[in-house]
Amino acid sequence: MTNRQIVLKSRPVGEPVATDFELIEGPIPEPEAGQFVAQNIYLGLAPAARLRMSEGASYAAPTPLGSVVYGQSAGIVVASRNDRFQVGDKVVVTDGGWQDYTLTDGALATKVDEGKAPLASWLGVLGVSGQTAYGGLLLHGRPKPGETVVVSAASGAVGGAVGQIARIKGCRVIGIAGGAKKCAFVRETLGFDDCVDHRAAAFDAALRAACPNGVDVYFDNVGGAVRDAVFPLMNDFGRIVVCGLIAEYNSTTTRAGPDWFPILTRRLTIRGFLMRDHADIQPRFIEDVSGWLADRRIVAREDITRGLHRAPEAFIAMLLGRNFGKSLVEL
Amino acid sequence: MTNRQIVLKSRPVGEPVATDFELIEGPIPEPEAGQFVAQNIYLGLAPAARLRMSEGASYAAPTPLGSVVYGQSAGIVVASRNDRFQVGDKVVVTDGGWQDYTLTDGALATKVDEGKAPLASWLGVLGVSGQTAYGGLLLHGRPKPGETVVVSAASGAVGGAVGQIARIKGCRVIGIAGGAKKCAFVRETLGFDDCVDHRAAAFDAALRAACPNGVDVYFDNVGGAVRDAVFPLMNDFGRIVVCGLIAEYNSTTTRAGPDWFPILTRRLTIRGFLMRDHADIQPRFIEDVSGWLADRRIVAREDITRGLHRAPEAFIAMLLGRNFGKSLVEL
Repeated sequence: MTNRQIVLKSRPVGEPVATDFELIEGPIPEPEAGQFVAQNIYLGLAPAARLRMSEGASYAAPTPLGSVVYGQSAGIVVASRNDRFQVGDKVVVTDGGWQDYTLTDGALATKVDEGKAPLASWLGVLGVSGQTAYGGLLLHGRPKPGETVVVSAASGAVGGAVGQIARIKGCRVIGIAGGAKKCAFVRETLGFDDCVDHRAAAFDAALRAACPNGVDVYFDNVGGAVRDAVFPLMNDFGRIVVCGLIAEYNSTTTRAGPDWFPILTRRLTIRGFLMRDHADIQPRFIEDVSGWLADRRIVAREDITRGLHRAPEAFIAMLLGRNFGKSLVEL
Repeated sequence: MTNRQIVLKSRPVGEPVATDFELIEGPIPEPEAGQFVAQNIYLGLAPAARLRMSEGASYAAPTPLGSVVYGQSAGIVVASRNDRFQVGDKVVVTDGGWQDYTLTDGALATKVDEGKAPLASWLGVLGVSGQTAYGGLLLHGRPKPGETVVVSAASGAVGGAVGQIARIKGCRVIGIAGGAKKCAFVRETLGFDDCVDHRAAAFDAALRAACPNGVDVYFDNVGGAVRDAVFPLMNDFGRIVVCGLIAEYNSTTTRAGPDWFPILTRRLTIRGFLMRDHADIQPRFIEDVSGWLADRRIVAREDITRGLHRAPEAFIAMLLGRNFGKSLVEL
């Protein structure tokens, strides 16, 4: 038995390619005092992990070349010298990494209650993606009943949860997604009021038509041209939550933002946001969202790729917007 | 006796010129029931009035061609059929206009207490400019002791008050102004910790050197190239209060804003702000600022031009940054 790991072989320039990654094998780690080892069942892929592959300044330290690729994992404890975690516990580890076995001191590990939701959900709607949606929308978007909320990357793990939570809060919710199939999923399965295809030629006009009362909250996961299309529709006192800039993660140049005039004249608030700054909302988040899941007021969808060796390909596809719901790798 | 008025003759394209304005004469107005007439002593000039000279969408209705130019006035009530205002009262009228006599129902008029400060100050540090500084800084900048606050147009009426209030709140305050003379005034008379000349060749480097711990609050009065120089210096959780975009008021094209990446990675908040949305802070503002004036913890300076006919020239000079403190016209 060995521990297979995917390590970063070279720093991607623009879009990552398969040869930026390498699968290596090594011994299964042994826990020292205070540590445990989990055998991973799922890896959770998130666009923000792309940022750690570059050397440029960001909010996270870059992954050193030759080190295991950063990412969340969900699995089962197989050896433990940590009092908080017993063999057999199901756990999610925020920095578990792309590997079969994770060795950790448990600081970034959480025990999972499979009575509330299946293990995979704890990497998605009950994990970092869901908490990002919940925290970003409620703390910074502050939606009021009757307001119009627009969400980009609406078929993704964060976007899908944002829209469904905004609907629960009484808002009119418009998604933006790439392609007719995703838009249909967002409307029909996730229950958004509407969803606009940003790849369609008439995107700007369609978005405007879908928001006849303007936009009060824009939850931005993508930046770029989609952001530039939503920006002119913002209402007075509108709020933009900047949660991600997927469209720009692969970019090798910076991209100008919109003119600031509407920020002044419409008294907009633009707020950048990382979930890790709001860990304190977790108990409320778990209680609310697991309740909504149980009541079927929230639908979660996972996009599962099988096999550790396929993690790079699944990650590259996700950055290109080819996933449908939370992107997971099943080991 | 006549009422001289300056009316808008043509809409400026770019910088206003003298021929965009015309001085006309007419009868002194008579109050009807509920109205009063004030004889104006000072007009208060503010950059935002430029916005009303254009037809484009803004937060304020454009001044119709042929109508009196928008602006604040301070004067004395000379005829009244309004129970709240008696002949002899000193008043400030927010929309008094560029004219000798203002006819108003008093909705936008405030009685002035000359025991607290001279009449001219009620158009500046105790008027809209001071209230904008106080409200924008405290409600949206939320400065904490020890933080670095940067203010553009620091020798102007709003900027000068922002920096002095931030100093009172225990911050390190760096001004940005145009030219060595203004910078010396900001440092020596207003007591900022430092002031950087945005017209100097080494502006970016000098600004960076003046902010060794980065910038926590940027109070932006100007936008444009100055904003672009401050933006990369913002610290994590920094706040940018967008109070004005003077550099862009005369522009005939829009100007791209900075890349949004730092908004996300540094979790910035950018907030557009108009004083009129926060009228409720006025009592607290008057109490605090008149106290600081009395204790000489705040210094106010007015830049006075004499004669109604010179209002256009004073206004044009102010937009070009040639004023020193609050720009007033004495009638």
